[in-house]
Amino acid sequence: MINVVVAGARGNMGSEAVKMVNSDSNFELVAVVDIGYDGMKMKDVPGMMDLDVPVYEDIAECFQKVECDVLIDLTAPEAGKRHMLAAFDYGVRPVVGTTGFSEEDVKELSDIAAEKKIGAIIAPNFAIGAILMMKFSQMAARYMPNVEIIEQHHDRKLDAPSGTAVKTAQMIAEVREAQKQGHPEEEEQLPGARGADFQGMKIHSVRLPGLVAHQEVIFGGEGQTLKIRHDSLNRTGFMPGIKLACETVLKLDVLVYGLEHIIE
Amino acid sequence: MINVVVAGARGNMGSEAVKMVNSDSNFELVAVVDIGYDGMKMKDVPGMMDLDVPVYEDIAECFQKVECDVLIDLTAPEAGKRHMLAAFDYGVRPVVGTTGFSEEDVKELSDIAAEKKIGAIIAPNFAIGAILMMKFSQMAARYMPNVEIIEQHHDRKLDAPSGTAVKTAQMIAEVREAQKQGHPEEEEQLPGARGADFQGMKIHSVRLPGLVAHQEVIFGGEGQTLKIRHDSLNRTGFMPGIKLACETVLKLDVLVYGLEHIIE
Amino acid sequence: MINVVVAGARGNMGSEAVKMVNSDSNFELVAVVDIGYDGMKMKDVPGMMDLDVPVYEDIAECFQKVECDVLIDLTAPEAGKRHMLAAFDYGVRPVVGTTGFSEEDVKELSDIAAEKKIGAIIAPNFAIGAILMMKFSQMAARYMPNVEIIEQHHDRKLDAPSGTAVKTAQMIAEVREAQKQGHPEEEEQLPGARGADFQGMKIHSVRLPGLVAHQEVIFGGEGQTLKIRHDSLNRTGFMPGIKLACETVLKLDVLVYGLEHIIE
Amino acid sequence: MINVVVAGARGNMGSEAVKMVNSDSNFELVAVVDIGYDGMKMKDVPGMMDLDVPVYEDIAECFQKVECDVLIDLTAPEAGKRHMLAAFDYGVRPVVGTTGFSEEDVKELSDIAAEKKIGAIIAPNFAIGAILMMKFSQMAARYMPNVEIIEQHHDRKLDAPSGTAVKTAQMIAEVREAQKQGHPEEEEQLPGARGADFQGMKIHSVRLPGLVAHQEVIFGGEGQTLKIRHDSLNRTGFMPGIKLACETVLKLDVLVYGLEHIIE
Repeated sequence: MINVVVAGARGNMGSEAVKMVNSDSNFELVAVVDIGYDGMKMKDVPGMMDLDVPVYEDIAECFQKVECDVLIDLTAPEAGKRHMLAAFDYGVRPVVGTTGFSEEDVKELSDIAAEKKIGAIIAPNFAIGAILMMKFSQMAARYMPNVEIIEQHHDRKLDAPSGTAVKTAQMIAEVREAQKQGHPEEEEQLPGARGADFQGMKIHSVRLPGLVAHQEVIFGGEGQTLKIRHDSLNRTGFMPGIKLACETVLKLDVLVYGLEHIIE
Repeated sequence: MINVVVAGARGNMGSEAVKMVNSDSNFELVAVVDIGYDGMKMKDVPGMMDLDVPVYEDIAECFQKVECDVLIDLTAPEAGKRHMLAAFDYGVRPVVGTTGFSEEDVKELSDIAAEKKIGAIIAPNFAIGAILMMKFSQMAARYMPNVEIIEQHHDRKLDAPSGTAVKTAQMIAEVREAQKQGHPEEEEQLPGARGADFQGMKIHSVRLPGLVAHQEVIFGGEGQTLKIRHDSLNRTGFMPGIKLACETVLKLDVLVYGLEHIIE
Repeated sequence: MINVVVAGARGNMGSEAVKMVNSDSNFELVAVVDIGYDGMKMKDVPGMMDLDVPVYEDIAECFQKVECDVLIDLTAPEAGKRHMLAAFDYGVRPVVGTTGFSEEDVKELSDIAAEKKIGAIIAPNFAIGAILMMKFSQMAARYMPNVEIIEQHHDRKLDAPSGTAVKTAQMIAEVREAQKQGHPEEEEQLPGARGADFQGMKIHSVRLPGLVAHQEVIFGGEGQTLKIRHDSLNRTGFMPGIKLACETVLKLDVLVYGLEHIIE
Repeated sequence: MINVVVAGARGNMGSEAVKMVNSDSNFELVAVVDIGYDGMKMKDVPGMMDLDVPVYEDIAECFQKVECDVLIDLTAPEAGKRHMLAAFDYGVRPVVGTTGFSEEDVKELSDIAAEKKIGAIIAPNFAIGAILMMKFSQMAARYMPNVEIIEQHHDRKLDAPSGTAVKTAQMIAEVREAQKQGHPEEEEQLPGARGADFQGMKIHSVRLPGLVAHQEVIFGGEGQTLKIRHDSLNRTGFMPGIKLACETVLKLDVLVYGLEHIIE
């Protein structure tokens, strides 16, 4: 049985994480950390699940009062860092879902984890399917270096290409020499037709109502193509990744950044 | 039984058409028209099928000597026009696969066909699947006006977007008011990500080895998407369209330009 | 301006329909019909929108009190039939989303509509994308009679194949002669591999978590394939179909069964 | 420079391999082994490339006369085994594309390779894209155990499901506990709709004209799906795999069976 504390338990992700921990027989939810309800039980806090689990505002106090193996932190970068430092002090292994850490933050936290020989996982993305897509794309690019990315999102999205598409292209670029693709003399009769260029890889962004969040990575080789596609419907898709991280962090004695590094 | 003459019988398309006519029990191949083998039998001409069918160089002579219902012409624009005029003179209905006619040519030929009340079909594209894709896309756009086109071809293709993609967008534009798609404030972090713009519709061109000729038209609406996709492997895919045109042209008394107008 | 009454306004579909009517400048919501809140305003009924629109329990009384052009009925078959009869009496055109009418019911209602020369639409499915998929599939099958259907749904679905897949196959069968597909001597090494058989067409049912409701119809011809795919996320996708039906029913003087017959 | 001998040089695969070796600047084609043209040059043998490269009938004589690093063998099982034994005798590393070896053959050849510390690769399938699809599918199944396979082939194929689909399912089964998928009470209204069963995984086989060889492996998880798809056009797709095997075999000192084990 793994004893878990969830910080940020009332947020969108946090409340899903509470549900996941509560329904998994390997996990025991021993406390949640949130602001404004210190000393209460979850069942007495509006918007929380009907559980007899204590709420703490101060994370150090929480770790003093309850026996905890893993902290799931789904707050913001500032609180996340503070919570990680407290976890390291109390020998608790943190699993943190935050995109906002600076490189310096990650370096500092890694050094502490290494010194204390305590496992920790920070992941900007817990969607296992998306992580697998990116990891497989990197592996495939070694053997099939001609690749284009088509990402498709709802039409309320502001940025193009998506962060996941750029991250995928970056991971591929780590193993693939930059090379121009397509015919050397190809011409766009309509500008933009061939998409955005990332070291010779082309990225195409589709935006339509009725789409949610989809990405297809297409590898072309003589006589064949390989396609890796991820379709995401909603954030319940993040829970298996958080669960995997909780199970894995217990076996680590360093900080790992990015779920792709714990998937074999 | 429909008596057929094939002009351009040694070309890539022409030789496929000869095979199709010869193997279809509704059709009888009565002659072929080609340059340099006048008066010979097909079986004596290098590169032609082993058939006891006469070869003519002069199409008028051909129509005088053999009983013919339909001319399949797979030559070039200049010969094609000459052959059509001869066909009209002899009451033969032409099915012509040429992309190169000018608007004036088509107008002139249409007027003659209308005056003589003789059916004729000119089609730049005989791939029924592609024609259906374009026709359905036009129909769907009336009800789902948010649409993007992704076309995918081998990486030896020079132009982007493909002619079929532009033709599809033009057909959609006939029934769809121009409208900007995507978020009004969307921004390209990498230029070209959102593709080429055609009256607000976006067109994306993928070029990779291992691809042949593919196009997907995606319609997005609240809570749903509709996708129409055509995959083309080779030019044998054109024969069912030529066959349909031969059967249909017998019932026509005007010239029809474009296979999409004979598909119900 | 089209004056609309919605019956079944508190149901899943009904409440979406109320939202759609309320937000469309061509429509005016003049009343709703529901059980148990007769004489109240919508804003005073729990679960209804905050609108100053009257609620009636008796549909005849409703039609006497308010000026109404179109009735949107999203109740059950029994109430639906009763409501249609009342609508015919008061010259109101009904748009009814019910799957449960018997053939006799439809015949009886059609006869009354024809006699009174009043338009009416009954549709078991208002998802325009799905209707277009079925209609296009029927059209394509005339030219490409080799076809298989792959439908994909979440893994809580009990029946296989889906109703939409069977309906699609039935519509195709209306224009396609039954024919065995695949190699005449093909053999299943694992039983079921080739799917279910419907007059020679094969239907395959995929069930997985993470899927919602998807269907792809694949047509194969020499050298090419044509694919028509519909992806459905949720029932907001039904509203454009209901809207189209409301606009179309005003121009009809008979009963039409099935949205596919009002799409051109 | 890697010196290569190709055995079976006139076959479909063999002649492609000759072309690949000849056009790659890292490889030198030093001889070919074939029956009936012993002592001739390739350029004098009908159907071989116009090269000044010697043809041998006896492989031992070939290895005595020319300096050779790698043997590419694309013959049949019996000759293939004989050629491998000769290669081991002369310190040549064999790359063998044969599906027909028995388990005993592979064991015997492995033992010799291990004893002599000489690398060798036997691969039933050299399509890198297909190998990647299978390998990624196995990796993904650890994290997303709900999976179905859809394979699509031309309608002249006799067996269903395809060998690749069964091999994929077997590789997945190595890491996935057998589990029934879909709703426990699901029912087939048309028998076969849910496909073939392999330890709870469902396999669906589509057969249509216009298809070549395609496979999609679909993983479903809460709120997301992951799809891995391979499309194969023709056997030129096998050459990158043979090339990779030739480069890798030089670094091996054991026999490896299956290209998936040399891909990282």
